[in-house]
Amino acid sequence: MSVTIGELARALDAQAWGDLSLPVIGAAEPSGAGPVGADGGVIALAMAPKYAETLQPGCMAILAEGMDPQDYGLKAAIFAPRPRLVMAGLTRAFDPGPDIAPGIHPTAVIADSAEIGEGGAIGPFVVIGEDVRIGPGARIGAHVSIGRGSRLGADALIHPGARIAHGVTAGDRLIVQPGASVGGDGFSFVTPEESGIEEIRRTLGSREGIKQQHWTRIHSLGGVEIGDDVEIGANATIDRGTIRATRIGSGTKIDSLVQIGHNVVIGEDCLLCGLVGVAGSSKIGNRVVLAGQVGVSDNIEIGDDVIAGGASKIFTRVPAGRVILGHPAVKMETQMEIQKATRRLPRLASQVAKLQETVTRLLEKG
Amino acid sequence: MSVTIGELARALDAQAWGDLSLPVIGAAEPSGAGPVGADGGVIALAMAPKYAETLQPGCMAILAEGMDPQDYGLKAAIFAPRPRLVMAGLTRAFDPGPDIAPGIHPTAVIADSAEIGEGGAIGPFVVIGEDVRIGPGARIGAHVSIGRGSRLGADALIHPGARIAHGVTAGDRLIVQPGASVGGDGFSFVTPEESGIEEIRRTLGSREGIKQQHWTRIHSLGGVEIGDDVEIGANATIDRGTIRATRIGSGTKIDSLVQIGHNVVIGEDCLLCGLVGVAGSSKIGNRVVLAGQVGVSDNIEIGDDVIAGGASKIFTRVPAGRVILGHPAVKMETQMEIQKATRRLPRLASQVAKLQETVTRLLEKG
Amino acid sequence: MSVTIGELARALDAQAWGDLSLPVIGAAEPSGAGPVGADGGVIALAMAPKYAETLQPGCMAILAEGMDPQDYGLKAAIFAPRPRLVMAGLTRAFDPGPDIAPGIHPTAVIADSAEIGEGGAIGPFVVIGEDVRIGPGARIGAHVSIGRGSRLGADALIHPGARIAHGVTAGDRLIVQPGASVGGDGFSFVTPEESGIEEIRRTLGSREGIKQQHWTRIHSLGGVEIGDDVEIGANATIDRGTIRATRIGSGTKIDSLVQIGHNVVIGEDCLLCGLVGVAGSSKIGNRVVLAGQVGVSDNIEIGDDVIAGGASKIFTRVPAGRVILGHPAVKMETQMEIQKATRRLPRLASQVAKLQETVTRLLEKG
Repeated sequence: MSVTIGELARALDAQAWGDLSLPVIGAAEPSGAGPVGADGGVIALAMAPKYAETLQPGCMAILAEGMDPQDYGLKAAIFAPRPRLVMAGLTRAFDPGPDIAPGIHPTAVIADSAEIGEGGAIGPFVVIGEDVRIGPGARIGAHVSIGRGSRLGADALIHPGARIAHGVTAGDRLIVQPGASVGGDGFSFVTPEESGIEEIRRTLGSREGIKQQHWTRIHSLGGVEIGDDVEIGANATIDRGTIRATRIGSGTKIDSLVQIGHNVVIGEDCLLCGLVGVAGSSKIGNRVVLAGQVGVSDNIEIGDDVIAGGASKIFTRVPAGRVILGHPAVKMETQMEIQKATRRLPRLASQVAKLQETVTRLLEKG
Repeated sequence: MSVTIGELARALDAQAWGDLSLPVIGAAEPSGAGPVGADGGVIALAMAPKYAETLQPGCMAILAEGMDPQDYGLKAAIFAPRPRLVMAGLTRAFDPGPDIAPGIHPTAVIADSAEIGEGGAIGPFVVIGEDVRIGPGARIGAHVSIGRGSRLGADALIHPGARIAHGVTAGDRLIVQPGASVGGDGFSFVTPEESGIEEIRRTLGSREGIKQQHWTRIHSLGGVEIGDDVEIGANATIDRGTIRATRIGSGTKIDSLVQIGHNVVIGEDCLLCGLVGVAGSSKIGNRVVLAGQVGVSDNIEIGDDVIAGGASKIFTRVPAGRVILGHPAVKMETQMEIQKATRRLPRLASQVAKLQETVTRLLEKG
Repeated sequence: MSVTIGELARALDAQAWGDLSLPVIGAAEPSGAGPVGADGGVIALAMAPKYAETLQPGCMAILAEGMDPQDYGLKAAIFAPRPRLVMAGLTRAFDPGPDIAPGIHPTAVIADSAEIGEGGAIGPFVVIGEDVRIGPGARIGAHVSIGRGSRLGADALIHPGARIAHGVTAGDRLIVQPGASVGGDGFSFVTPEESGIEEIRRTLGSREGIKQQHWTRIHSLGGVEIGDDVEIGANATIDRGTIRATRIGSGTKIDSLVQIGHNVVIGEDCLLCGLVGVAGSSKIGNRVVLAGQVGVSDNIEIGDDVIAGGASKIFTRVPAGRVILGHPAVKMETQMEIQKATRRLPRLASQVAKLQETVTRLLEKG
């Protein structure tokens, strides 16, 4: 595919400079973008002076505002007022899309009662159960399975090997990366009498007689309800609810290898990064960001707009708007002080030991 | 499906009250359960007064013992002496089961030498290898693969896309959630001469000359041995052993995205929650509970009945019955004291600084 | 399969003792290895005196150097100068290999433009896209999908259900364990105006007005480039790059459930253990070892030969050769001191409280 740099600038809603008729056929890092040839070329992403150092004369580039294309001998340039936003538009423009051929592959096994909207592309060996409803424009990769009665809105993109169980509903533009599991059973078990976990929650850690008991399964009758514009990462797992559905709000993005427990409710426009775990029945507000490897205990509430730094371990409720960090997670600024003091702790300990000696001597003298 | 509330109470071994002939067709949260109609209705789960607030008059509910159905204008009620146990029975009663049609789907590829017990339901595109033995009543979802010589007991339920490699044996009632991998190769490598890891384990952290060396693979000849009543979560991974099998005891439940390394031995009736990792050759006793994101180092032993709180990182052996928490994990009560003291640490440091000043002044005076 | 113990010793480049004509048909732990019969037997792995205690007389064993086979009444023995290295050779010799029949299974869906090298074994329901190039000797298990234009070198071993997206290139001897995803989209999003995360990175934690904003996707045009001799664990996920490829160097081994973010560059001969997460655009040197559950923040650099202990959380760049541990990760010896001091912290706090009292009394007296 190819557009002129002028067309690209208009699509990105950005200013352009130079020969705007040059054809752009892709994007590259500055070191990978050569001079523009007769058929055009790739556009270099040089949105900060440090990235621009390896730009070659005669090429096209996206620059930050305030950078001068003539300093680098460019033929044409686009100015990015907000570089990552320009990246979004640019990468969308040049994405060839996933590897799913149009139409329904003859090997797909689709229940008679299932309905698939117009323009759907269904890959080889896909399995779609009874009463499934899939909106128009769906692209469903190889080896995907979708269980009985599940419903996906328009323009779903389900990558190869993703597992959507029965009783899952999703809004429009759902993206599911390879191997993700939506609607596996919740991890919910009970012992005939009080279990050790229940005991230590009641006693805050102490234990009486330990009994031998087996776990009985609590089945998961609830499904999963997903809003619009949700993305679910590769091999992530979202468990179904027990009685009501596990819920993921519109605009929320979930990274690879994230685990969402049964009955969890997640608000809108959240980001949950890789290897995050949210235990059963917790509730997460809107616009919450959980960085990689964050853990959220069961049955707690995280308010709107909370941001949790990498590997924060959250054991108690967090009020709206708070920025937290650490294990256990506390306010970020408190954590920073704790970390500083902790690094100095061995020194502090020897300082106290010396003080103790001095004071003892003072006492003896006194 | 539908039962009368009287039948349901008997099945749950619980007391009932009111019109016991009312048909129950499902369960819901109190806010989702309307008054019982002519054809019956859903039963509301209101097992604590706070949940009962949104009960509508004229409906059916499960209440905690001591709650009065007439306070809520109910038509009928069941009393739950142990609410979660009632949940287990109730959800089992209303679970329509997974989406796997009876019989063997014509697309399944099953080796001639494989034996599948009576009443098996095998989904589309399932692949079953040579000499596999599967007991009666198995339900195997779409796209599952089971390798050469593996053996599953009666009533196995293997959800779509699960991977069971060769040489895996399991007892009765095995449940494997979507995408789980049982019997991948262990992560075991060796360098020609001492590696950096071996060096720092020997020297406790210091390093001499760093050598460039490649890793040679140690193959995994052992399989995986699984007891009865084991459940393995979505996209969880259980590696095969090197010489002998990796072992999971009867009654143990493993959550989504848990990683069990090669040669690990896990006892009976354990719970391993989401994103737990157990490194190679460690041994875990019976009735051990590892909460979400717990990590267990390689080659250590966790005694019976140990409970490790969320995100505990376990580096050394843990005696039986201990309740632990933290990074590194220590006794829960010790951890609680450490956390309290750590939060006060910045204050402690400035207190010591002031003390130091005071004592210096005292010394000068003296 | 069977070899004589003499042949096996030669293959392992090790010294042997006793009747070297005895046939070896496999390997076992000492307690599982009986006396050698007429048809040979398994060889016991007893590479330390403590493992040798359960050896039965009349059997064959691999011993550490310096152990005397006559002490255990053995018929034959091999001496292992470096036991784990002998394990590598021994397990390779007796590994029956994965469950993939030779030839191309008739159910496989292979694009006309794809090229598969000589001797390839392709399992049932495999899907291979347009312009894929696969070198000679490939073994590809059931339900694997390989996207448009991807290239694998010689002797690839791709276990069942692994997902290789479009635009992935790998060198020779690639091993991918079940369910791994290579080339899922990066987790990269941008808001129209500054987001909360950008704000707190700028302000180091404080926030002004919180805005409601939606996330726009940055598409992933880069692929994944993988060197020779790389292994990728079960259900691990390696995201594709944004503009350039995510890169994994030759000889690097990645364990189960590891997450590698977009644009990450990993050097040669690294080990990344289970549940490790490396966030986007970070750079990891050669021969780096990240133990289980280690986390690496985005956009940082880990030097060559760094070793990070279990569950280390790495927030800042790490110089070459350093051994680190903890949350946040610091030098291992510093961490050890911090942990010791932290365990004593509650005691330190009460010591300071008493000192304070004493000093106050001294002051009053003075």
